[in-house]
Amino acid sequence: MSTSTISRPSGRTTTQLRPLSIETGYTRHAEGSVLIKAGDTHVLCNASVLEKVPPFLKGKGQGWVTAEYGMLPRSTHTRSDREAARGKQSGRTQEIQRLIGRSLRAVFDMQALGERTLQLDCDVLQADGGTRCASITGAWIAAALAVRTLTGQGLLKASPIKDHVAAVSVGMVDGRPVLDLDYIEDSGCDSDMNIVMTGSGGFVEVQGTAEGQTFDRGALDQLLDLAHAGIGELIAAQREALARAG
Amino acid sequence: MSTSTISRPSGRTTTQLRPLSIETGYTRHAEGSVLIKAGDTHVLCNASVLEKVPPFLKGKGQGWVTAEYGMLPRSTHTRSDREAARGKQSGRTQEIQRLIGRSLRAVFDMQALGERTLQLDCDVLQADGGTRCASITGAWIAAALAVRTLTGQGLLKASPIKDHVAAVSVGMVDGRPVLDLDYIEDSGCDSDMNIVMTGSGGFVEVQGTAEGQTFDRGALDQLLDLAHAGIGELIAAQREALARAG
Amino acid sequence: MSTSTISRPSGRTTTQLRPLSIETGYTRHAEGSVLIKAGDTHVLCNASVLEKVPPFLKGKGQGWVTAEYGMLPRSTHTRSDREAARGKQSGRTQEIQRLIGRSLRAVFDMQALGERTLQLDCDVLQADGGTRCASITGAWIAAALAVRTLTGQGLLKASPIKDHVAAVSVGMVDGRPVLDLDYIEDSGCDSDMNIVMTGSGGFVEVQGTAEGQTFDRGALDQLLDLAHAGIGELIAAQREALARAG
Amino acid sequence: MSTSTISRPSGRTTTQLRPLSIETGYTRHAEGSVLIKAGDTHVLCNASVLEKVPPFLKGKGQGWVTAEYGMLPRSTHTRSDREAARGKQSGRTQEIQRLIGRSLRAVFDMQALGERTLQLDCDVLQADGGTRCASITGAWIAAALAVRTLTGQGLLKASPIKDHVAAVSVGMVDGRPVLDLDYIEDSGCDSDMNIVMTGSGGFVEVQGTAEGQTFDRGALDQLLDLAHAGIGELIAAQREALARAG
Amino acid sequence: MSTSTISRPSGRTTTQLRPLSIETGYTRHAEGSVLIKAGDTHVLCNASVLEKVPPFLKGKGQGWVTAEYGMLPRSTHTRSDREAARGKQSGRTQEIQRLIGRSLRAVFDMQALGERTLQLDCDVLQADGGTRCASITGAWIAAALAVRTLTGQGLLKASPIKDHVAAVSVGMVDGRPVLDLDYIEDSGCDSDMNIVMTGSGGFVEVQGTAEGQTFDRGALDQLLDLAHAGIGELIAAQREALARAG
Amino acid sequence: MSTSTISRPSGRTTTQLRPLSIETGYTRHAEGSVLIKAGDTHVLCNASVLEKVPPFLKGKGQGWVTAEYGMLPRSTHTRSDREAARGKQSGRTQEIQRLIGRSLRAVFDMQALGERTLQLDCDVLQADGGTRCASITGAWIAAALAVRTLTGQGLLKASPIKDHVAAVSVGMVDGRPVLDLDYIEDSGCDSDMNIVMTGSGGFVEVQGTAEGQTFDRGALDQLLDLAHAGIGELIAAQREALARAG
Repeated sequence: MSTSTISRPSGRTTTQLRPLSIETGYTRHAEGSVLIKAGDTHVLCNASVLEKVPPFLKGKGQGWVTAEYGMLPRSTHTRSDREAARGKQSGRTQEIQRLIGRSLRAVFDMQALGERTLQLDCDVLQADGGTRCASITGAWIAAALAVRTLTGQGLLKASPIKDHVAAVSVGMVDGRPVLDLDYIEDSGCDSDMNIVMTGSGGFVEVQGTAEGQTFDRGALDQLLDLAHAGIGELIAAQREALARAG
Repeated sequence: MSTSTISRPSGRTTTQLRPLSIETGYTRHAEGSVLIKAGDTHVLCNASVLEKVPPFLKGKGQGWVTAEYGMLPRSTHTRSDREAARGKQSGRTQEIQRLIGRSLRAVFDMQALGERTLQLDCDVLQADGGTRCASITGAWIAAALAVRTLTGQGLLKASPIKDHVAAVSVGMVDGRPVLDLDYIEDSGCDSDMNIVMTGSGGFVEVQGTAEGQTFDRGALDQLLDLAHAGIGELIAAQREALARAG
Repeated sequence: MSTSTISRPSGRTTTQLRPLSIETGYTRHAEGSVLIKAGDTHVLCNASVLEKVPPFLKGKGQGWVTAEYGMLPRSTHTRSDREAARGKQSGRTQEIQRLIGRSLRAVFDMQALGERTLQLDCDVLQADGGTRCASITGAWIAAALAVRTLTGQGLLKASPIKDHVAAVSVGMVDGRPVLDLDYIEDSGCDSDMNIVMTGSGGFVEVQGTAEGQTFDRGALDQLLDLAHAGIGELIAAQREALARAG
Repeated sequence: MSTSTISRPSGRTTTQLRPLSIETGYTRHAEGSVLIKAGDTHVLCNASVLEKVPPFLKGKGQGWVTAEYGMLPRSTHTRSDREAARGKQSGRTQEIQRLIGRSLRAVFDMQALGERTLQLDCDVLQADGGTRCASITGAWIAAALAVRTLTGQGLLKASPIKDHVAAVSVGMVDGRPVLDLDYIEDSGCDSDMNIVMTGSGGFVEVQGTAEGQTFDRGALDQLLDLAHAGIGELIAAQREALARAG
Repeated sequence: MSTSTISRPSGRTTTQLRPLSIETGYTRHAEGSVLIKAGDTHVLCNASVLEKVPPFLKGKGQGWVTAEYGMLPRSTHTRSDREAARGKQSGRTQEIQRLIGRSLRAVFDMQALGERTLQLDCDVLQADGGTRCASITGAWIAAALAVRTLTGQGLLKASPIKDHVAAVSVGMVDGRPVLDLDYIEDSGCDSDMNIVMTGSGGFVEVQGTAEGQTFDRGALDQLLDLAHAGIGELIAAQREALARAG
Repeated sequence: MSTSTISRPSGRTTTQLRPLSIETGYTRHAEGSVLIKAGDTHVLCNASVLEKVPPFLKGKGQGWVTAEYGMLPRSTHTRSDREAARGKQSGRTQEIQRLIGRSLRAVFDMQALGERTLQLDCDVLQADGGTRCASITGAWIAAALAVRTLTGQGLLKASPIKDHVAAVSVGMVDGRPVLDLDYIEDSGCDSDMNIVMTGSGGFVEVQGTAEGQTFDRGALDQLLDLAHAGIGELIAAQREALARAG
C-alpha cells in the first residue's frame, strides 16, 4: 500500500502510527509496570502476580490471565463520572477489559504459568482514541516483565508466553483506509476496526463496526492489510522495550 | 462453496442453517412481537414504541433505537443466576445488548423515526448457541412490525427502516469453516465470528475471536463468505415472515 | 353459589375461570417445564433440580424448595423497566416470589426430597392480571415433572409431594364476588384476595386487600367459597396435564 | 369465645392481648411521634409531613401516605445485619412497609390531605413478635398526631382521617386459636394471620399463612373472630392515647 | 478557665455539659444496652457478643471490637432518607462508625477478649448535635456491660477493658471556646473539634475542622483544655452508671 | 526543635520531608494538572472546571469546590481490589475525599468563584504513605492552575483563592516526633496526625489518631510544631511550582 498524502489532523500519513513511547518500570510495586504512550493516549499497564486462581480453576494445575480497565475521570476532553463513585463499571468498560483479557490469554500457556493469576490493570491517564489497543499492546509488555520477575525469583523455569500480541485500530475516513485513529478521526470516521494479532500474524480478535455507513468486502480487506503492517511495527517496539529493560 | 460432508452433531452440512421458525404477534401488548427459533435457540423479541428520547437527543427532532437482552435463568443447560436477583447485568449481557442496539441503528433513519424511541427487548427462552445472532435477526422483524403499527396509526408516513439487518455465527471447527454454530460446536471450535450484515451486503459488525488458536487471513476470508450466504437466507426468511404477518 | 349474569369485560360469568391452557415440556433443559396460560396471562414455569441446599440446611438431610419470579419488560400494557438493568428487584417482585416459594413448600416433604433444592422460575411472558396465581398453579406442575425426572433417574424412590397446591384470585366488583380477575377487573375492584389451597381443601395462604373500600365478614365468606370452587377446577386441570405428559 | 385456660409462655389466656403501652411525643422533631410497646415488642413510629408528593401525583391536588420499616440490628435475639450496611432492604422489610402503607392509606381521604405526603417511619427498637401489627397500630396514632399538628398550624381545616385502623396477629397453636402471638408462639404455631381492621369493623388486610400445616375454614373463622375482638381493644387504646396527648 | 457568662441558646455556660442521662438495660436482647441522652441528643448503644472474628483475625487467638452507626430518618429536624432504602451508607456515616470503632479498640486488650467480636450498634433516636461523641461515650458503657455478661457467664475471667474512653465536642463560637455544642451552635461555629480521651487523660482521637475560618494555635490550646475537663465529667458519669447497673 | 539523629528507614532526619517533585501540565485535557511526588508516593491531581453547581447551590451566585480520590489497584505493595469493580468506594476513600474537599474549600472565596464547580481528582499512581496529604498539597496547585486558565480565558477577573493550603503527616515513632511518615513508619508508629494548614499558619484540619497507644498533651504539642515547619516548606514548593509553570 502506498503512503497516502491526504491530510490527517495530526499531519500523519494514512499508514503512519502515532509516535510511540514505552517506559518500563513506571511504578515500583507491580511485578511488571509499563507506561505506554501512543501519541496523546497514555495508559499505565501494571501486571500483578497473584498466587491464586479463580474458583473454576482451583486444583487444575493451570493458571489464569485476566484484566481490568479504567479511565481516570479527567483523562478525557470533558470530565467523565468516576465509575467507583457511580457504583458500577459501564458496559464499555466491561467490554474493553474482557477484550484485553481474551487477547492476552491467547498467547499464554496456562499450564506453564502454573496455578497463579496474572492480573493486568490498564488505567488510562490521558485519552486521545485507541485506548483499548494501547492497553493490549502495553499489557503484553507488563506481562512479559512480570514473567521475568517470576523467572528471576525461580518461580518459573520457562516463560509461559508463546508469542507477542498487539493491537491497533484502523478505519475508513472519507472513504480511505487510515491507520491508528486518534480521537478526532475516530469520532468522524465511517467505520472502524480494532485488530488484535500475534507476532506470527494470526488474528486474535477482529472487531469492526460501521458507525455512519456499512463497509463492503473491499474496504474490509484494505483495513486488514493496514492493520497487519501497523501491528508489525508495534511488536518490534515491544521487543525493543523489553531489550532496553534489561 | 461446495457443501461439506463432515458430520455435525445436528447432522447438518457445514453450510446449512438450523431450521428457522418465526412466529409474529407472539405477545399482544408489544407494538411488534416475534418469537424466533433457530433450532433449539428460542428468543422472544418485543419492540416497544416509547414517545420519548434519551436526554442527549431531546429537542433534536430525531429518534433512537436501543435494545436490552436477557436470558431466563433456565434457558441454559444448567441454571444460571437471575441477573435481577444478583443486582447487575453481566459484562456479557451488556456487550450483547450494545451489539443489538448498534446493529439495528445501522439501518434506521433517525430523522424519519421522529422524536421517539424504539426499544427492543430480546429475551432468550431457550438457548443452544447463537442467541445474539437470533436476537438481531428477530429484533429487526419486531422493529418492522412496530413501524407498521406506527404507520397504521398514522403516526409515521414513511418507514424509517432503510434496509434489512440480520446476523449469523460462523466458526472454524476442526479446521473447516462451519455456518451457524450450535452450543456444542461453539464450545469446541477454534475460533468463531459473529457477522452482522444488511440486505444490500454491507457489513455492520464483524466480531471474530480466536478461542483455542488464532486464525489466519485465509480462514477469515472463508468465514466471511460463508456468513454472507447464510445472511442472505435469513433475510429472505425475514421478508417472508413480514409478508405472512399481513 | 348460582352463576351470576352480570356482564364481565371478558363475557365470563362471575364464577367462571378464564380459559386455561397448560403446555408441558415447553423448554428442554429444565427438569420440569410448563407454559401456563390463564386467558391472556402467560407464565413460563421452569423447575430446576440443584444438588445443593442453602447454608442453613447443610448436612441436615433435607431439601429445599424456593422460587424466583420476573416479568419480561413488555409483558405489560406499557413497557416496564427491566429489573436486571435497574439493578434490583422491586418490592412487589420479592413479595410474589416469597409467596410462590411458601406455597410450594407447604406441600413438600423436605425429608423425602433429600438434600437438594428444587428451584422454581416463574417468568411472565404476557400479563393480564393474576400472574402470581398462575405462577403457583403452573409451578406445582413443573415441580411435579421435575420430581418425575428424579424418580425416572432413580434419584428418588417416592415422591416428596404430599398434595396439589393451586391459587386463584377473587374480588368484589361492584359489590358482587367475582372469580379469577383479569387486569381490567383487578384495577377496578373494591377488594381482592389471592387464595392458595391444597387438593384436600386446606388453606395455605389467604391474602385479602381492600383497594377502594374495606370488606365485611359476609363478603369475605362469599369470596372464600368462590375461590374454593375455582381451585377445585384448577387442580383437576393440573391432574389432567400431568396425565397427558405421560 | 370463652377465655381459654391453656398455658401460654407469657401466662396470658388465649384471648388476651399483651400489655400495651403507648407513649406520645417520644421524639421532638417529628410532626407525630409514638413509642408503642406490645409486651416486649417496642416500635418507634414517627410521622413526618413532607410538602411534596410522588411524581405520579404531581398537580392532582391530592396527597399520599407511605411508610418505611426497619429493625435495629440488635432488636432481635441474635444480631441481624444492618440493612444500610448490606446495601439493600430484605424482601421481608419491603413486604412489611408496603403493608403498613396500604393499611394507613385505607383510612385516609387523599383529597382532604391536600398535595402533601405523610411519611411514616416504623423502627423496631426491640422485637418479640408482631412487629408489623404494632407498627400499624402505632403508625395510625403518629399519623393522627401529625394531622393535629397540621390543623394546629392552620394547614388543614378538617382531618383527612376517616377511621381508625389497627392490626393484630392470631394463630393456631397446638390446634387452638390464640390472640397476639409473641415470638416463641409465632415460631412454633401451625399457622398465623395478620389482620388489619378499621374502627367500623371492615377488613383492610387479611394475611394468613400456613406454617406447619394448612388450616381449614373452621379454624379461619375462629381466628377472624378472635382478631376482631383484639382489634376492638387496640382501637380503644388508640383513642385513649390521643385523648391523653391532649 | 473561669466560667463564661455569654449566653448560649440553651442557657448553659461555655464550660457546661448538657444534662446527661444514661439508662442501662434499655433493650433486653443485647449483651449490653444503653440509652444515652446528652440534652436532646438520644443514642441507643447496643453491644452484641459474636463468637467469631473477621477473616483477617481467624486463628490468631485475639478478638475484635467494631461499630456501626445510623440515624433514624426522623431523628433530625427535617426527615433524612433512610440509608437502607437508598442502598448505601453515606460517607459521613462510614466516617463516624470507623471513628467509634477505633475509639473503643484503643482501650481494649484484644488478647484478653479472646477470639470473639464485640459489635457496637449506635443508633440515633433523636439528634441535636454531638451524636458521634454521645455514641462513643455510650458505647463504652454498653461494651462494659457486655463484658460483665461474659464474665458473669464465666466466658471471661478478667475484663479486657484497660481504661474508660469518652468523647466530647468543643468549638470556637463568636471567638470564644465552648464545650459540648448542640445543633444550633454546631451549625454556626467557626471551627469545632471532636476529642476522644481515655480515663487516664491520653488522647485517642483529635479531630478539628475549620468551618468558617481557620483557627490558630492559641484557640486550639483552649479547646483542648476545655475538652479535657468535659471528658472528666463524662467518665465520672460512666462510672456512676455502671455502679447503678449493679 | 533540633534535628534528630535517630535512623529512619529512608535515612532522613526526623524533621526532614521526603524529596518533593511537582510536575505541572502532566495531562493535557484538565484545566489544571499536577503530578506530585513525595518520595515514592505519586499522586496525579487534576482540576476540572464544570459550569454547574450542585442542586443546593443553584441560583445562589456562588461556586463549589469538591474532590474525589482513588488509588490505582496496583499503586500498593499488594494489589487492592478496584473500587469500580467492587461497586463501591470504601469508607477510607470517602473519608479522604471529604477531607480534601473541605481543605480546599477553606481557602476559596465561593462568591468570587462564580456559579461553577472546581472538581479535583486525586488519583494515586504509586503509594508509600501520606497519600491524602500529597493529594491536598497537589490539589491546591492544580486548583491554582485551573484558576489561571479561567482568568486567562477572561472568565474570572480576580482569583477566588485566598491563601495556600497544604498538608503533612507527623507521628510518634518509638517515642519521638517524626515528620512526613512513609509507609513503613506509618505502619509501625504509636500515633499519627494529618495536619492541614494555610499559608498564614491557620489550622484547617487536625486529625490525630492513637494507633498503638494514646498520646499526651506534650506529644501533641511537639507534633503540631513539627507539622507547622513542614507545611512551611511545602507551601514554598507550591509557590515555586506555580512560578515555574509560568
